[in-house]
Amino acid sequence: MSPIRRSVVALEAYAPGEQPPPGKFIKLNTNENPYPPSPRVAEALAAFDAGRLRLYPDPASAALRARVAEMHGVPREAVFAGNGSDEVLALCSRAFVERDGAIGYFEPSYSLYPVLADIREVARRPVALADDFTWRMPAGYACALFFLARPNAPTGILYPHATVRDFCRGFAGVVVIDEAYVDFASRDCMDLARELDNVLVARTVSKSYSLAGLRVGYAVGHPDLIAALDKLKDSYNIDALSQSAALAALSDHGHMRANAARIRATRGRLMEGLAALGCTVYPSEANFVWTRPARAPARDLFARLRERGILIRYFPGARTGDCLRITVGTDAEIDALLAALRQEEESGHE
Amino acid sequence: MSPIRRSVVALEAYAPGEQPPPGKFIKLNTNENPYPPSPRVAEALAAFDAGRLRLYPDPASAALRARVAEMHGVPREAVFAGNGSDEVLALCSRAFVERDGAIGYFEPSYSLYPVLADIREVARRPVALADDFTWRMPAGYACALFFLARPNAPTGILYPHATVRDFCRGFAGVVVIDEAYVDFASRDCMDLARELDNVLVARTVSKSYSLAGLRVGYAVGHPDLIAALDKLKDSYNIDALSQSAALAALSDHGHMRANAARIRATRGRLMEGLAALGCTVYPSEANFVWTRPARAPARDLFARLRERGILIRYFPGARTGDCLRITVGTDAEIDALLAALRQEEESGHE
Repeated sequence: MSPIRRSVVALEAYAPGEQPPPGKFIKLNTNENPYPPSPRVAEALAAFDAGRLRLYPDPASAALRARVAEMHGVPREAVFAGNGSDEVLALCSRAFVERDGAIGYFEPSYSLYPVLADIREVARRPVALADDFTWRMPAGYACALFFLARPNAPTGILYPHATVRDFCRGFAGVVVIDEAYVDFASRDCMDLARELDNVLVARTVSKSYSLAGLRVGYAVGHPDLIAALDKLKDSYNIDALSQSAALAALSDHGHMRANAARIRATRGRLMEGLAALGCTVYPSEANFVWTRPARAPARDLFARLRERGILIRYFPGARTGDCLRITVGTDAEIDALLAALRQEEESGHE
Repeated sequence: MSPIRRSVVALEAYAPGEQPPPGKFIKLNTNENPYPPSPRVAEALAAFDAGRLRLYPDPASAALRARVAEMHGVPREAVFAGNGSDEVLALCSRAFVERDGAIGYFEPSYSLYPVLADIREVARRPVALADDFTWRMPAGYACALFFLARPNAPTGILYPHATVRDFCRGFAGVVVIDEAYVDFASRDCMDLARELDNVLVARTVSKSYSLAGLRVGYAVGHPDLIAALDKLKDSYNIDALSQSAALAALSDHGHMRANAARIRATRGRLMEGLAALGCTVYPSEANFVWTRPARAPARDLFARLRERGILIRYFPGARTGDCLRITVGTDAEIDALLAALRQEEESGHE
């Protein structure tokens, strides 16, 4: 008999986007920030005494949590810090769902959510978005834990704040509003984490703070929810270097905001360029754009761009298989992408 | 109704040892290495371009796993790398135990093991060690997953290799041999991970490599077991800095071995010093010593040493409450500890 749990044998694990060797591709496939992190990060690393690494890190990441609490105007007990927001999400799946409970999420959304339900061996309760990927919620919908990405991935769509608030207010379980991309959006939902005792807002330094290489995310919400996550986390879940580097980044909001503004401007150019090529372009409030190509099947276009040295993201499946997700890179990278798409368009006409 | 899972409300979380502000105490409470990591770690960090942190780390930690595979003479598919060995242990609890399965471990041993069973909501199946903390295993004992710390913590005792081998061969479930402290011991069990398809050996860079501040551990074993852990881990479980620093440390065995030799020498002095004071001293093959004080209750002695600025570890409970665990620090730290114990002894005679 196999010693491996049956559900693990059956599990289709989450597949992260390709991480090729540096320099080989124009890399627009995993929503990384094209600009480096705050210079304060490099300063913090240069000032870090490697000898200190012999000691355990602060298990509570207290300085980091204090900074997050200050940023969002909440008490420290309302903040959890995790090894990337992936750890935050995984801990929520373990903290808020009984064995006979269910985990809900939209389709399409971040493809990790159903995997977290499978790992816990609890029911998945997906909700199909409208055809144009806007909000749709059936009456009487219920589950123990709902993962709500806002802006959504891979679509970039920002559900209206009032819609989300009404949903959370009427929901009996815990709602995790996954705001990984919210610094590129027009409005966040942090107020709901402060007001409602069943809402956690999850954030990460991976995208807007240009620190995907670190693994630091956090959650803000009611202290009872936060305390549950603390009970379940690995004792020392964030290493000393990451705590130090993340703290430096979170102390330089100006740098993050300037980069986010540049990315939003480039996003506008990308959306216009795609529309000019006849693609369907969904309104993005994230650092990526979700688009349906004018003629070529999305899968083929993805493959041909890869041959041209440009990596974007293709998600097979009924709801996603005719679209592509393009990360907003630098202006030059987006110009190269649009030029390649124009050439594909022209060669397709031959 | 509380949205928090009932088992989480009931959970008694693992309590890590106190991490006071630096410099306040002679810190002999959490088995940290008193010597700094290899200079190659500082070099790796100095050479690390902070700009790279905008990109995700290698999700597979391939370079790190390749180094571990080379060190232990196993194929790369036989190596898993985790965010500290705590992540490795937690993943094992999720990979190898069905809902109606049980997790086994010795009592006393690393107090995280029962917590991992509680988090999974599966049965605990503890095995009481002999009165002198040596191996004792009841006939017909069975469970899905057995955590076997060797050397054991907090006792420092190294079960005979042949005993462990026979146990693993006759055991139907998975055995995780937790070798966090094995670099301070006379013999490891890595051969069992190579030979037996139900054995994983877990290691960490926290202790012998002086890198508790990083969170890097690994497991070696049958590729099927390793693949199960890979399915369950967070996609990017080890950040880019930690991968780089751990790789540097693992490439400098000489530094680690020299420090481990110094610690073993100091351990001998500590054991002799404690015995001279009339304490019962258990034979340690780790970087800590488990001892029963001659007269004062262990809890009182712990508290009085703390007042004197020396932090050691006290574990309440039937099997552990009359003993103390002392981390092997520098010679000067151990001299200070022994002097303080002598003074306590003398003041007790007044």
